[in-house]
Amino acid sequence: MRALACFSRATSLQPCHFVRHFTSATFVRAKFQPPKLDLKMAESTTKTGQPLDRVVLESVLRRRLFYTPSFEIYGGERGLFDYGPPGCALQANVVDLWRKHFVLEEDMLEVDCTMLTPEAILKTSGHVDKFADWMCKDPKSGEIFRADHLVEQVLEARLKADKDARGQAVEVDEAKEAKKKKKVKDTKIEKLDDALVQEYEETLAKIDNYGGDELAELIKKYNIKGPTTGAELEPPRAFNLMFQTQIGPSADKPNGYLRPETAQGQFLNFQKLLEFNQQSMPFASASIGKSFRNEISPRSGLLRVREFLMAEIEHFVDPEGGKKHPRFEDVKDTKLSLLNRKTQLGGSTKTDVVTIGDAVASGLVDNETLGYFLVRIQDFLLKLGIDQTKLRFRQHMANEMAHYAADCWDAELFTTYGWIECVGCADRSAYDLTVHKEKTGAPLVVRETRAQPLVVEEYEVDLERKKLGPKFRKDAKAVEAAVDALSQDLREKLALELEKSGKIEIDTPGVGSGRTELDKDLIKIEKRKRTEHVREYTPNVIEPSFGIGRILYSLMEHVFWVREGDSARGVLSFPPMVAPTKVLLVPLSGHADFKPFIKKLTARLRRIGVANKVDDSSASIGKRYARNDELGTPFGITIDFQTVKDGSLTLRERDSTKQVRASEDEIIAAVKALVDGEETWEDVVKRLPAFEGQEVE
Amino acid sequence: MRALACFSRATSLQPCHFVRHFTSATFVRAKFQPPKLDLKMAESTTKTGQPLDRVVLESVLRRRLFYTPSFEIYGGERGLFDYGPPGCALQANVVDLWRKHFVLEEDMLEVDCTMLTPEAILKTSGHVDKFADWMCKDPKSGEIFRADHLVEQVLEARLKADKDARGQAVEVDEAKEAKKKKKVKDTKIEKLDDALVQEYEETLAKIDNYGGDELAELIKKYNIKGPTTGAELEPPRAFNLMFQTQIGPSADKPNGYLRPETAQGQFLNFQKLLEFNQQSMPFASASIGKSFRNEISPRSGLLRVREFLMAEIEHFVDPEGGKKHPRFEDVKDTKLSLLNRKTQLGGSTKTDVVTIGDAVASGLVDNETLGYFLVRIQDFLLKLGIDQTKLRFRQHMANEMAHYAADCWDAELFTTYGWIECVGCADRSAYDLTVHKEKTGAPLVVRETRAQPLVVEEYEVDLERKKLGPKFRKDAKAVEAAVDALSQDLREKLALELEKSGKIEIDTPGVGSGRTELDKDLIKIEKRKRTEHVREYTPNVIEPSFGIGRILYSLMEHVFWVREGDSARGVLSFPPMVAPTKVLLVPLSGHADFKPFIKKLTARLRRIGVANKVDDSSASIGKRYARNDELGTPFGITIDFQTVKDGSLTLRERDSTKQVRASEDEIIAAVKALVDGEETWEDVVKRLPAFEGQEVE
Repeated sequence: MRALACFSRATSLQPCHFVRHFTSATFVRAKFQPPKLDLKMAESTTKTGQPLDRVVLESVLRRRLFYTPSFEIYGGERGLFDYGPPGCALQANVVDLWRKHFVLEEDMLEVDCTMLTPEAILKTSGHVDKFADWMCKDPKSGEIFRADHLVEQVLEARLKADKDARGQAVEVDEAKEAKKKKKVKDTKIEKLDDALVQEYEETLAKIDNYGGDELAELIKKYNIKGPTTGAELEPPRAFNLMFQTQIGPSADKPNGYLRPETAQGQFLNFQKLLEFNQQSMPFASASIGKSFRNEISPRSGLLRVREFLMAEIEHFVDPEGGKKHPRFEDVKDTKLSLLNRKTQLGGSTKTDVVTIGDAVASGLVDNETLGYFLVRIQDFLLKLGIDQTKLRFRQHMANEMAHYAADCWDAELFTTYGWIECVGCADRSAYDLTVHKEKTGAPLVVRETRAQPLVVEEYEVDLERKKLGPKFRKDAKAVEAAVDALSQDLREKLALELEKSGKIEIDTPGVGSGRTELDKDLIKIEKRKRTEHVREYTPNVIEPSFGIGRILYSLMEHVFWVREGDSARGVLSFPPMVAPTKVLLVPLSGHADFKPFIKKLTARLRRIGVANKVDDSSASIGKRYARNDELGTPFGITIDFQTVKDGSLTLRERDSTKQVRASEDEIIAAVKALVDGEETWEDVVKRLPAFEGQEVE
Repeated sequence: MRALACFSRATSLQPCHFVRHFTSATFVRAKFQPPKLDLKMAESTTKTGQPLDRVVLESVLRRRLFYTPSFEIYGGERGLFDYGPPGCALQANVVDLWRKHFVLEEDMLEVDCTMLTPEAILKTSGHVDKFADWMCKDPKSGEIFRADHLVEQVLEARLKADKDARGQAVEVDEAKEAKKKKKVKDTKIEKLDDALVQEYEETLAKIDNYGGDELAELIKKYNIKGPTTGAELEPPRAFNLMFQTQIGPSADKPNGYLRPETAQGQFLNFQKLLEFNQQSMPFASASIGKSFRNEISPRSGLLRVREFLMAEIEHFVDPEGGKKHPRFEDVKDTKLSLLNRKTQLGGSTKTDVVTIGDAVASGLVDNETLGYFLVRIQDFLLKLGIDQTKLRFRQHMANEMAHYAADCWDAELFTTYGWIECVGCADRSAYDLTVHKEKTGAPLVVRETRAQPLVVEEYEVDLERKKLGPKFRKDAKAVEAAVDALSQDLREKLALELEKSGKIEIDTPGVGSGRTELDKDLIKIEKRKRTEHVREYTPNVIEPSFGIGRILYSLMEHVFWVREGDSARGVLSFPPMVAPTKVLLVPLSGHADFKPFIKKLTARLRRIGVANKVDDSSASIGKRYARNDELGTPFGITIDFQTVKDGSLTLRERDSTKQVRASEDEIIAAVKALVDGEETWEDVVKRLPAFEGQEVE
């Protein structure tokens, strides 16, 4: 179970947090793991340099129904959230952009596989046995805790209390700490032995390494009790994070799961996809869809949820020839902010800004294909409106990766929760295709005609089957298998022996004494040449894997700011391409004369594919715009009495609140150009006459 | 459980099948039920008048990876399908069109709610208790059958055998029938008593009405055994069609389900959506997402699956004022093909083509809002490429609808499986909001200021609570409740009585003798006026509900045809707007001179948002086009040596195989106009010079 350590991901800026990841991780996947929270909110600033107040942002997001806890009128269900209209539109725009940026531009083969997954598949992939966390129960209250989180929380609280007792200055949010203390019963302000402090710190550094038995030992050793009851805890037990269910009426127990990732469906269809791609390599499949993880204790809003939207790419590439990428040349000069393994080992989180060309050339990034995708991921995130100063690529530590992985980089976004892993980009080697091939016998391989036929010279073994059966009876098959399994080296030796003495002896486990004699009537070993025209190989997989919900949340943090001098006026500066609504139509009042203009404008904008909304409520124009600033609507068109006279309209830009006035045709053309990204607001301001007025409360 | 009869939907053209639905259906939902299959394939023709051969179509769809059984290399899992690249793109285009056609054009509030749903919600909605089918088990083989389907299958087989014995001509596919007989052991060619024939026919006509006990009785009475073993069957038991799971680590048994529909999430968020809509009514919410039903025995390919994509609208409307719709005027002259309730009662399936204006005016369609959506549904389906001659709207029978529903129409599409319900459009009254409001106390209501304050004159009752307690002690509350519940009529009578005799006697169930005396010291009843400024009501819901998978499959049947004289050349004539890929780029050969043109064209088309693919395989141009006809790609651009000389290109249209030749700019402009629907191929052919050549195998 310790293999699962790689699922826990630190996100703090503190170097010590990274040390926790130096685990001997052997499990198959390492992506989208819940962030560990700092004791206090990470300090982040808005684009105007103000401190970002998460509480203010969250109140805007909830008020404007970007998202809301699911089933709230029934008391809610932790770890489940619904997206309201703006969140849903934002998500659809991000998905649309993803599809254009990856599937269309890269000519990927998109598939839509089912979420319901029979047990056999996830048994083979390793999830049934290993996709679990350790939990322990407080028998008195019935509360359930993630064992590693509990140990961590208690030890951190004790260390904190110790520091307080020693009178060291610790920056903490006092109200929060008070609350925390109330919850964690055993944290009196108490000085600890120096040795114990060191022991605690070492334990915390290794917390991700511990399995169930070790966690049980720590709980006992450090006398950790139920935090609300003080009761003895039940020993930790493994809790599989997949949701189980029963497919069909005939099973008498659960026989399937909700998928924990979209990748498996893509692997299982590899053969058909290769055929669809006319046997041509390399190629990528892609999938956008929900996945599910039954978190023991969901928290951090949208960052750790039980049902989430993923977008995953599986790029299949020939493992020979250095995993080159045909378009690498186009991106090689792009700079990325990289936090490499070595730096982390040295306890630092300093990033290096280097071109991907240099990074691949120096071997820092394993190969061109991986490097190409890191650039494409960065391009995508920046298009969405992610703040480049809050984006870094962090390399996995050697023992943080799955055992078969060649290299792995996470795109991390900085938020008030710390650095959050939002996209994983791993070289998964041939692992998945191999295990499914071995389990099912399906030829999940590429067969390609060799440009130059390959001449192979090898020792081949011929058995006289007619005599083998009568001689060995029930053991004949085992003997045959043992012969087939002989290595080339061994065959060479045995060929000589056979020639010399007319008989040989080979290992046959389970047959007789374990050794079996075969004479030359039964076996022949010869060196022969043969020509191979076809090469067969299992492709390697480079897998960029996106957590859409995490990207959405981080984006909302990155584009949020508050107008100078008025903390109540929040703005979400989404780029027009991803903004939920592009244009707000605002009639000066409910006057009947404005209605035909609104109707006409709405229809015109819709025809050119520009999502728009009308706000003809009785609030002041300023109030109506303020509401839409919170919704992130980038443009506003006002219809006033001048419009009725001469058909002219004003166009307002969200971030600057500047306005221009021009004819309907000119305004529509400007909006179209702005939304399509063909013009910037600065271009428009230069072209069209400025308008001053109305924008007051 | 008989309430569930409304879930079974006949789709045959045979009038007798409809008779089966005259049930006393009381359950909540009646949509997307698996079609009943005819004994033989329904006859359908392609647009060229050829008989549609489902086997040929299915082989094209599988070969081209529109869809494929999920987990096939693991032996597959019934009722689950993956969409491959063309199916996935088709689905994305249909969803995109749906979003534009409904969400954007109608200004709906789209939400994305979780699929995981705690039990309490589905308990309230009725699904936990009633969303079930009856199954029975063959104890010998372990096979499980849907009880009603089994009875039906056996009786139909016996009737068929009887007809054979009587020497009546019956059109059947002999190979199929032979296979069937092999499966159903007891169908010897055997003549039945006339009385028994009539009894069987009556039973079949009522098959959807039977509950578990009745089905058990039928199985016994008609001596129905396990079809493959001949063994006595276990008695039918209810099987809930929802997938159960366990949310969180603390539950000791399943505590949640995968949603069977997207509607509940929308109802639960009603209050927040109304607030988001600035308290303005009417409005609609919408949701696109997967739902799940654990079918006992999935069949019919994409038509009856366990995991499926739905798009649902919940339009909330004031129940007063006739449910008018502001845009009804715009659609009132649109004609629909309606199969009304009365016609079905008369045993016919004749449709009437009437304008929706007339249908609403005559009361055939209950109200304007319902009528408006029927037109919008038709518009949407026709935009997709649905064949209008294979579309009808069938009204639910009175006892086929949920008990509270005012009216319900299904958009049905004709396929080789018969008429398939693809969109349901029901007036669900205030049912769901009311049950959730009652269960949770959440105010799922609209409060609106009355234009004219309402003066209400009513009898009000005042109780002297100080005396009530001491006098009635533990019964005080019951007495108070009984008083509160008194109707206005009764209050009027009691007021007179109280004035006359100084005391009254009221019904108080469970208190003393069941009657309680109250005197005028305790109670006062007076007629009083009060003015109501706010009106409070629970909105009614009109719910258009789309089964996207069913629409996709029907569409593929509607647009499929085979080129004259060559049955191997299938074509899928998707309209450009929904076609998976819009343009195929075909270089004459792999010559290096063509490559820069391909690269440039791909980039130009992508920039204007036109999905395109390159086929530079070594197959002949004709073969490459034939492959793409099967993928439904509407246009093809050929790059040949003339292109290298003068930059001109040929553009080919899929259905006519006609080609034009023009400059790159002209061809790109034509493609854009064609894909956007601004020009037809006929327009293009008139403008640009025809090109003859190449299109040979």
